Amino acid sequence: MTDAEDLAERVRDGDLRIHELEEHADYDTAAHARRLLVERETGTELEAIGDYAFPAEQADPNIENMIGAAQVPMGVVGPVPVNGGATDDEHYLPLATTEGALLASVNRGLGVIRTAGGADARVTKNGMTRAPVFRVAGVAEAAETVEWVEDNFEALREAAESTTSHGELLDIEPYVVGDSVFLRFAYDTKDAMGMNMATIATGEACELVERETPASLVALSGNLCSDKKPAAINAVEGRGRSVTADVLVPGELVEDRLHTTADAIAEANTRKNLIGSAKAGSLGFNAHAANVVGAAFLATGQDEAQVVEAANTITTMDARERDDGTTDLYASVSLASLEVGTVGGGTKLPTQAEALEVLGLRGGGDPPGSNADALAEIIAVGALAGELSLLAALASRHLASAHEDLGR
Amino acid sequence: MTDAEDLAERVRDGDLRIHELEEHADYDTAAHARRLLVERETGTELEAIGDYAFPAEQADPNIENMIGAAQVPMGVVGPVPVNGGATDDEHYLPLATTEGALLASVNRGLGVIRTAGGADARVTKNGMTRAPVFRVAGVAEAAETVEWVEDNFEALREAAESTTSHGELLDIEPYVVGDSVFLRFAYDTKDAMGMNMATIATGEACELVERETPASLVALSGNLCSDKKPAAINAVEGRGRSVTADVLVPGELVEDRLHTTADAIAEANTRKNLIGSAKAGSLGFNAHAANVVGAAFLATGQDEAQVVEAANTITTMDARERDDGTTDLYASVSLASLEVGTVGGGTKLPTQAEALEVLGLRGGGDPPGSNADALAEIIAVGALAGELSLLAALASRHLASAHEDLGR
Amino acid sequence: MTDAEDLAERVRDGDLRIHELEEHADYDTAAHARRLLVERETGTELEAIGDYAFPAEQADPNIENMIGAAQVPMGVVGPVPVNGGATDDEHYLPLATTEGALLASVNRGLGVIRTAGGADARVTKNGMTRAPVFRVAGVAEAAETVEWVEDNFEALREAAESTTSHGELLDIEPYVVGDSVFLRFAYDTKDAMGMNMATIATGEACELVERETPASLVALSGNLCSDKKPAAINAVEGRGRSVTADVLVPGELVEDRLHTTADAIAEANTRKNLIGSAKAGSLGFNAHAANVVGAAFLATGQDEAQVVEAANTITTMDARERDDGTTDLYASVSLASLEVGTVGGGTKLPTQAEALEVLGLRGGGDPPGSNADALAEIIAVGALAGELSLLAALASRHLASAHEDLGR
Amino acid sequence: MTDAEDLAERVRDGDLRIHELEEHADYDTAAHARRLLVERETGTELEAIGDYAFPAEQADPNIENMIGAAQVPMGVVGPVPVNGGATDDEHYLPLATTEGALLASVNRGLGVIRTAGGADARVTKNGMTRAPVFRVAGVAEAAETVEWVEDNFEALREAAESTTSHGELLDIEPYVVGDSVFLRFAYDTKDAMGMNMATIATGEACELVERETPASLVALSGNLCSDKKPAAINAVEGRGRSVTADVLVPGELVEDRLHTTADAIAEANTRKNLIGSAKAGSLGFNAHAANVVGAAFLATGQDEAQVVEAANTITTMDARERDDGTTDLYASVSLASLEVGTVGGGTKLPTQAEALEVLGLRGGGDPPGSNADALAEIIAVGALAGELSLLAALASRHLASAHEDLGR
Repeated sequence: MTDAEDLAERVRDGDLRIHELEEHADYDTAAHARRLLVERETGTELEAIGDYAFPAEQADPNIENMIGAAQVPMGVVGPVPVNGGATDDEHYLPLATTEGALLASVNRGLGVIRTAGGADARVTKNGMTRAPVFRVAGVAEAAETVEWVEDNFEALREAAESTTSHGELLDIEPYVVGDSVFLRFAYDTKDAMGMNMATIATGEACELVERETPASLVALSGNLCSDKKPAAINAVEGRGRSVTADVLVPGELVEDRLHTTADAIAEANTRKNLIGSAKAGSLGFNAHAANVVGAAFLATGQDEAQVVEAANTITTMDARERDDGTTDLYASVSLASLEVGTVGGGTKLPTQAEALEVLGLRGGGDPPGSNADALAEIIAVGALAGELSLLAALASRHLASAHEDLGR
Repeated sequence: MTDAEDLAERVRDGDLRIHELEEHADYDTAAHARRLLVERETGTELEAIGDYAFPAEQADPNIENMIGAAQVPMGVVGPVPVNGGATDDEHYLPLATTEGALLASVNRGLGVIRTAGGADARVTKNGMTRAPVFRVAGVAEAAETVEWVEDNFEALREAAESTTSHGELLDIEPYVVGDSVFLRFAYDTKDAMGMNMATIATGEACELVERETPASLVALSGNLCSDKKPAAINAVEGRGRSVTADVLVPGELVEDRLHTTADAIAEANTRKNLIGSAKAGSLGFNAHAANVVGAAFLATGQDEAQVVEAANTITTMDARERDDGTTDLYASVSLASLEVGTVGGGTKLPTQAEALEVLGLRGGGDPPGSNADALAEIIAVGALAGELSLLAALASRHLASAHEDLGR
Repeated sequence: MTDAEDLAERVRDGDLRIHELEEHADYDTAAHARRLLVERETGTELEAIGDYAFPAEQADPNIENMIGAAQVPMGVVGPVPVNGGATDDEHYLPLATTEGALLASVNRGLGVIRTAGGADARVTKNGMTRAPVFRVAGVAEAAETVEWVEDNFEALREAAESTTSHGELLDIEPYVVGDSVFLRFAYDTKDAMGMNMATIATGEACELVERETPASLVALSGNLCSDKKPAAINAVEGRGRSVTADVLVPGELVEDRLHTTADAIAEANTRKNLIGSAKAGSLGFNAHAANVVGAAFLATGQDEAQVVEAANTITTMDARERDDGTTDLYASVSLASLEVGTVGGGTKLPTQAEALEVLGLRGGGDPPGSNADALAEIIAVGALAGELSLLAALASRHLASAHEDLGR
Repeated sequence: MTDAEDLAERVRDGDLRIHELEEHADYDTAAHARRLLVERETGTELEAIGDYAFPAEQADPNIENMIGAAQVPMGVVGPVPVNGGATDDEHYLPLATTEGALLASVNRGLGVIRTAGGADARVTKNGMTRAPVFRVAGVAEAAETVEWVEDNFEALREAAESTTSHGELLDIEPYVVGDSVFLRFAYDTKDAMGMNMATIATGEACELVERETPASLVALSGNLCSDKKPAAINAVEGRGRSVTADVLVPGELVEDRLHTTADAIAEANTRKNLIGSAKAGSLGFNAHAANVVGAAFLATGQDEAQVVEAANTITTMDARERDDGTTDLYASVSLASLEVGTVGGGTKLPTQAEALEVLGLRGGGDPPGSNADALAEIIAVGALAGELSLLAALASRHLASAHEDLGR
């Protein structure tokens, strides 16, 4: 009997609990034992799930009750030509997805952008937020609490920053709703996505607030952060990086490579991404930015659920007439709340770390924060390519047939 | 020189293009050659990415320019006890994520739900949508077009359904904005998530609309669908499955296992998930539903970017007093737009298919649609467990320390 | 001592209560007595407020504790040239406002529209809604209740329509959130705005729901109606009338009369009304539709607070090139939720009734509903004129100076 | 022939234009002539409209093409007991409306609040905003422009404040969307509502921005202000005054006067105002705040169309158990964006000025801004009373019958 079989039997006998296996064997054996248990209970064989390519122990900070790994096909697009604030180079961008036709579409857009001389990109705002909610007796205490917070920013900054070697508290924005006071803390978390850093630092600051004011903490996150929810506060004020990328595509290129015109693309964008999204009551005025961001997140070890905020993206497409009468296409994407990091979280896992290395962005940047800025700019240009390609496809009406050919 | 090295050299020599490799070698060799190219260009080694556990050819419908796979740690939670409309059983739920503490948290919630006798769940609405946008001369033509569509639903249904053996057209809802007419087609796509089915069927119907009315198609998707964008239309009217799950947790259990009270959890939920989200201008009135859905999506081969719509979730928590004076906790999650399938897309890939087998839901259900319904119900109960556990943790104030212990 | 003085003294002596005065004197004397009381308490003179031009008794259905009237300056714009579905004529439109420059601006726009041959307008949807919320034990009962409602539409229609001679129940749309069930009833209320009709009819239907299902009514309005709140459900699905108006303005006219170009106006509209509103997280993609609607509501006796829903308006402006190279301007407004009536509410009051007579729309239409439809179309064209004029002013940069000249 | 008849004839003869009449006669005669014209054209008699109670000339800054006035019934509620930051007194609050039952309902709520010892109220934020939109070449210029603005706040403040003796520039918040840059200027406009002040000051600052940066002004208002549109930016960040009011109502009072319980009201509020509004995709989590605000706006000469922003209100109702076991009701309203003034606009008109005098708030306050602050606090308490009364009515189920009795 192997160690794994033995462990599995002990769980079935009630000697061990399923989440305790790592205490009694190495991590891979524990995962194996767990697979045996699940296989027996469900009559399945978990061969592929068990055929992962990293030491299970390495995933310990990322998962509990591990049985193996999900394997998602990864491809590469690019090179992505970025004239950015944090990177001024070409990069291959790894994307992991199960959506057929996505990489082909992004690549087509990138080809056009490359020929057009590359895309500009800038991080225009940066701040990871955490917003605890406090209970007060009523509006009078609320006003008192807000006043104390505004008068004591420095003390709160010290408290918050005492918990972190890298993070910097940028701002605390108070919001009052009846007997609830929300304080939205914003941090520069450098190359880390920064949710945990922000949570821990804010927790420390909250103790000071509780000590010095009548406010009593109800929840360390009061949803004005707002993490992994579609929320106007992120779309308007940003969360993580606010990043914009754009390109001016010469009219000739639009015709030769995208088989349509700047006017047709601009019309499709206006009716679909602006008016359609307006009528839908949307916070996302784009075609499929989430597709590109989601695939890049998966490849590079970002938090997959934060694709929610990434969808707060506005795409614009405009026809611009040159002096010679040719009509060029101006295209841009503005991602209000892109939360990325090159350290921490899933970035240390083997395939994810390799993907970051392909980008030249593994680990902390010099200066700190520059790697995450660059990652944001590259993803933005990838999203721009995806928008360009899909809008052109819609304008020339081959969306359905493209899916018939390439997807399922 | 191996075949892969040879291919790579031919790309470098300009004889071949990087996306054409599959035409000149088997799929695994093509992916290998592509890795060699990227490794050389970027000075990296893509060992882990190349160490995938499935025949590359199998991923051909899902990816282009494949270099390997992203491997994301997968664990298992459960059993998940569901008293549902489509399933009335216990299921182990595989979750793939890099967010430490997530599975432990969900599992804690599931334990409580199990002890409480399981959770109820129901799919209350079902319809995958696609909403093309048409150009008309103005409001008079718009009214004319809408009238024609309303008078000719049967003909449009026939056209749409001619493209699919499974899908059924349920409804067409017209929206007029000036000289743009949007038609929101809704389909029962059975066990498929159904985006492509809906796109192709709608394309066929659009040809009829163009033939018979003055309207001219601008884009097959006009963003009133609305796919992978945060949009009120989905939060209000639903997309894919609208699914609700709930549980009544006896007060004793709340205290023993969650170390807090129903009143404290209800207060945290009201201030955070209801008032906080209200103040944030959010469509998501929950704590972290996207985390659980995203991890389940990744494990089971769903479209990762559709976690965006899944975040349109409302969580309620209420204290209910029993006759004996004990206060129980009523907890619910209502996911307005959960888009899931058990056939097509990424569900055929090996680790994903195994994960669906663990759930007993691989492939088409009997009756058709019942497997996807069951998957929706199970994921909803998983999300309920996550909400319950996190709200309890916030209420008892150990969010920060939980992350300190388990996450990074 | 006059009767009014006598009454006032009796209130001060505690013999009478301030809201009971109408029981002891005619309505004008009661209002007079109330003014005397307030004047004495606050040291003021309410001459203007007391100088109203209608018998106080006539306002009894509209006000309690009457002291007089607010007088708001009323002017007239037009004629408004409408090629509508319910009216095909020119109308003077009375507007009451305190915002200087508003009527001048609307009139400028109307002049352009008249020269351009008038505006088209259509009511594309009609339905006044009321959405009660019910309590159920949980999701299982919720599903059961929804099913019963869907199976018993006819019985519910009979119950609802038993309370009204005019109204027709069009639809009941169910929404489930945990243990809350919302039913959105939509009515054709003909020439009445219809809130009260809808409330009373829904109340009757609710009794049937409570009798036949486990659901228990919590509130006759559950905010999915949604009345006098900014809500996506109204912007998306409409409430009252959804009405669209548009005009094609020849390029020559844009230059001669608006002193700018179609391209400049289209650009201003895109950046401000589409992109700006998108970034603001708005449901109103217009410049100032609420101004025109608010002034028309005030003049014609509509419910002033429903200007909230009227602001759910999308304005589009497009440059369209003619064959001869001239660029015309296509301009449209689409008001998703315009709630108007020509009977009931404030429409019977003297100045308001006169204003409706100026429009030729006082009282019920033939067929029923046609007067309210026509009013919606005329207001929409008024709003279109306001948008056209303001956008042109912004495009030619004289907003600030216009306000300096005309406003305060 | 009277002067008015003579003027009317000259317009019919084409000698004069209808908006030029004030140049040829006194303002009342001009209005009379205009009535004669409209009466003849439309076959109506505008007796009531012509029977206004103020010199027409006084309304000249507020209206063009005047024909008379709309008369809206005005009543009085109160006294309103406010323990505020700007007022600590009781006030009669005049309300003008055509909605029967509204004043009775508010008065019932105020009675309860008075017995409970009055309501607390605080203005927690103050800033009138104007947000121009600029065109830049692309993201690189956008970043450059934003940087210049951030570095030159003082120069911009000087430019802006050079146009006003009272206003103070508080903040400029930049937002980038592709090649559009929005700058949201926020001002303390003291006792003026301040839209025009903000517009003029911002116009001046924009000239500096255009001179010193590559940015070119497209529209002085870019809809991130956002004026008279439902917009999350106002609901989240506020516009005009953010004001909160609350009251703790003893349980005995809830039962005696509202004939229900704190628990029942809290439940109705949660299901309707929180969950219902959440499901509706709303920015207004209240029952009918717009009703009270709209009626107060109309009575006191505020901008009626700004009731749109006032509807961004969150109402909370909570049951709080006392030590003796009695359950009290905590009720609050938080109006995010209440735009009020006691000088300028319609406040100078006779009935409106008298209404402000009843409140003791006519004209500028001492210190400046305190009158507008007090007005905001009083209106907030009025809205609180309306919420309390309506929620109690819903909880005790007599909404429909109340309307049957009092409204039409």
